[in-house]
Amino acid sequence: MSDLTARFRALWDEIAPVGRDAGSGGYLRYALTGPELRLREWFRGQADGRGMPVTEDGNGNLFAWWGDPDAGAAVLTGSHFDSVPHGGAYDGPLGIVSAFLAVDELRAAGVAPARPVAVAAFVEEEGARFGVPCLGSRLLTGQIAVDRAAGLRDAAGVSFAEALGDRPAGADPALLGRFAAFVELHVEQGRALAGQAAPVAVASAIWPHGRWRFEVRGEGNHAGTTRMGDRRDPMLTYAFTVLAANKEARLRDAHATVGRVAVEPNATNAIPSTVTGWLDARAAEPQTLRALVEAVQAKAAERARRDGTDLTVTEESATPLVAFDGGLATRLAALLDAPVLPTGAGHDAGVLAAHLPTAMLFVRNPTGVSHSPAESATDDDCAAGVAALARVIGELTCG
Amino acid sequence: MSDLTARFRALWDEIAPVGRDAGSGGYLRYALTGPELRLREWFRGQADGRGMPVTEDGNGNLFAWWGDPDAGAAVLTGSHFDSVPHGGAYDGPLGIVSAFLAVDELRAAGVAPARPVAVAAFVEEEGARFGVPCLGSRLLTGQIAVDRAAGLRDAAGVSFAEALGDRPAGADPALLGRFAAFVELHVEQGRALAGQAAPVAVASAIWPHGRWRFEVRGEGNHAGTTRMGDRRDPMLTYAFTVLAANKEARLRDAHATVGRVAVEPNATNAIPSTVTGWLDARAAEPQTLRALVEAVQAKAAERARRDGTDLTVTEESATPLVAFDGGLATRLAALLDAPVLPTGAGHDAGVLAAHLPTAMLFVRNPTGVSHSPAESATDDDCAAGVAALARVIGELTCG
Repeated sequence: MSDLTARFRALWDEIAPVGRDAGSGGYLRYALTGPELRLREWFRGQADGRGMPVTEDGNGNLFAWWGDPDAGAAVLTGSHFDSVPHGGAYDGPLGIVSAFLAVDELRAAGVAPARPVAVAAFVEEEGARFGVPCLGSRLLTGQIAVDRAAGLRDAAGVSFAEALGDRPAGADPALLGRFAAFVELHVEQGRALAGQAAPVAVASAIWPHGRWRFEVRGEGNHAGTTRMGDRRDPMLTYAFTVLAANKEARLRDAHATVGRVAVEPNATNAIPSTVTGWLDARAAEPQTLRALVEAVQAKAAERARRDGTDLTVTEESATPLVAFDGGLATRLAALLDAPVLPTGAGHDAGVLAAHLPTAMLFVRNPTGVSHSPAESATDDDCAAGVAALARVIGELTCG
Repeated sequence: MSDLTARFRALWDEIAPVGRDAGSGGYLRYALTGPELRLREWFRGQADGRGMPVTEDGNGNLFAWWGDPDAGAAVLTGSHFDSVPHGGAYDGPLGIVSAFLAVDELRAAGVAPARPVAVAAFVEEEGARFGVPCLGSRLLTGQIAVDRAAGLRDAAGVSFAEALGDRPAGADPALLGRFAAFVELHVEQGRALAGQAAPVAVASAIWPHGRWRFEVRGEGNHAGTTRMGDRRDPMLTYAFTVLAANKEARLRDAHATVGRVAVEPNATNAIPSTVTGWLDARAAEPQTLRALVEAVQAKAAERARRDGTDLTVTEESATPLVAFDGGLATRLAALLDAPVLPTGAGHDAGVLAAHLPTAMLFVRNPTGVSHSPAESATDDDCAAGVAALARVIGELTCG
């Protein structure tokens, strides 16, 4: 085990138990709840130990500074602590732990950066508690209205403003203006690096993606007594839509998933009155995504006519293509001799990319599994990620 | 409006508001919860007003007696108060309201029955709260073990024994031995009488039927980043099974429904780890039902292999063909000049039919819809049902 691998493991072990569910082995680290608050305290402790003062913006995001925050042109790195329900250990925290270790690496090498470095912990990246992903970075950049964010409520009815202890401050151009670049390190959420030589890749883009709600209304009725020919069964339309989404996505090398469904009344002996499914669709190009969703919608509508059901499709969210700074990606890929990959997942980096030069580094994930307790990365690959991030920060703070 | 129609409407109006959901217009009358307990109190009040003493067996079933309970050879009628979620007004309560009105009709006509008449309200006929339909009649007849029934739990974890306030008593041959026949009046749950001259029919048989749980386990993963070819998505296997069940039922002139599904974790941006669907299947003959379920299971298993998922099929319940007493059905059909029909729905009458001569009367349902707020019957047809039930009770108590 290399020294860096050992240092990674030692720091990683400090946070590994926080918020872990003994049953699933996954994490319940919802934004501003007990486990995430303990990780934020841990963040402050790590910063203190390194002599890095911590500032908190008015939106719940934390920043630990190496160098003078007022000097400007700082290099920002970091990620988030919060998880999806029963999520993996790496999605988010790996970027924060790696950032502190990268600072250690640079200091140990005697690097005296010409520009400040800041390590960020963004709040509510997953949207698992308040429903809107990247909430902290959206507030900071003004991509969500303060009123809307303040009023978002969790399942228990607690508002984001209540959880934060105050109304969020919203857009902060002065803070954003202090940064010259943002680099987020993240565990890979696919298998593009699995079985390849490189443990680290540079991101090219985030696929355009969105959520569409397919609501199918039929006629609730008795499962035992209603003749098949007399039925208007919305479950049939739903089932056909699920299979159509899978087929159309494969035809286009895109991604389509129906992972959530709601059924009324959801009883074994009742033909449902309503079945609602949520389509998550993503593709490399906006036109492919549009064609995919239109094809699924057309097939669902045709099936609804056959089933005698009524279909309503509502776009719940749509996120355009995020192309990361091409020059920066090329420069980092050359520096690290790393492959360049797109991703289908949203990130705070995707939000910040509209405001400052932004890049992402991905650390190899042997199984590709994420948003699940089975998410993994080897300690050696994580150490390689730390080394890569240190080189990137060194490069970007030298000029 | 005839006098009987007016008397039906007046009594019906007394219970119409109890447990009605203002949103759906359907009923939430789960066994031994507030609304159903209020209906049981109403039952006692109706019996009191008619001078009919009420007995409760040790299983939660109520009996109101006209005549001496100890005389033997009583004619039993009645039905149940409990509903499916957002169920209709008629399924169950129509049989109880009609029974009290039939007693009134016979008394007004000066009939002095040679045998006692009992009006029953059976507990938990739908199985909507504790999962086992006809629980009260199954307990009374010993068709379910006391331990199993006592330990059945509702969604909140309350056991049947706790809801009942005591451990159920189980089989009661002494009580059963007091009855010479059972006649249950019920709203029709299909359209066999719609558009025909007869408002009332006599049942010939209950189709064999059952419930099978299809549990599909795959691999939970990120919807955005997991390549289609790397997925093991149980929702695909589920969707294919739904469509296969529909097709196989139509090929056999049988009934198949998947009206209930449970998804883990049921999140828009997660490929599910597990999807469980419940198949409700019914057919006129046992061999047709068996062939239907086997065909659905074979198709689901084949699809699971293609999807890389694991399928487990569990038979949750199976009810054989119930042929009602042929002589009794013929006698009542002749008495009422009524058609004779089979039904796909289970009933307490189906449970009791194994123990005493049993018949059912069906009251016309213009749309055939049931287990839904849209379930309906005209007041005139309900009054015709009361008159028919009075004639049947008069006939059966004369001998």
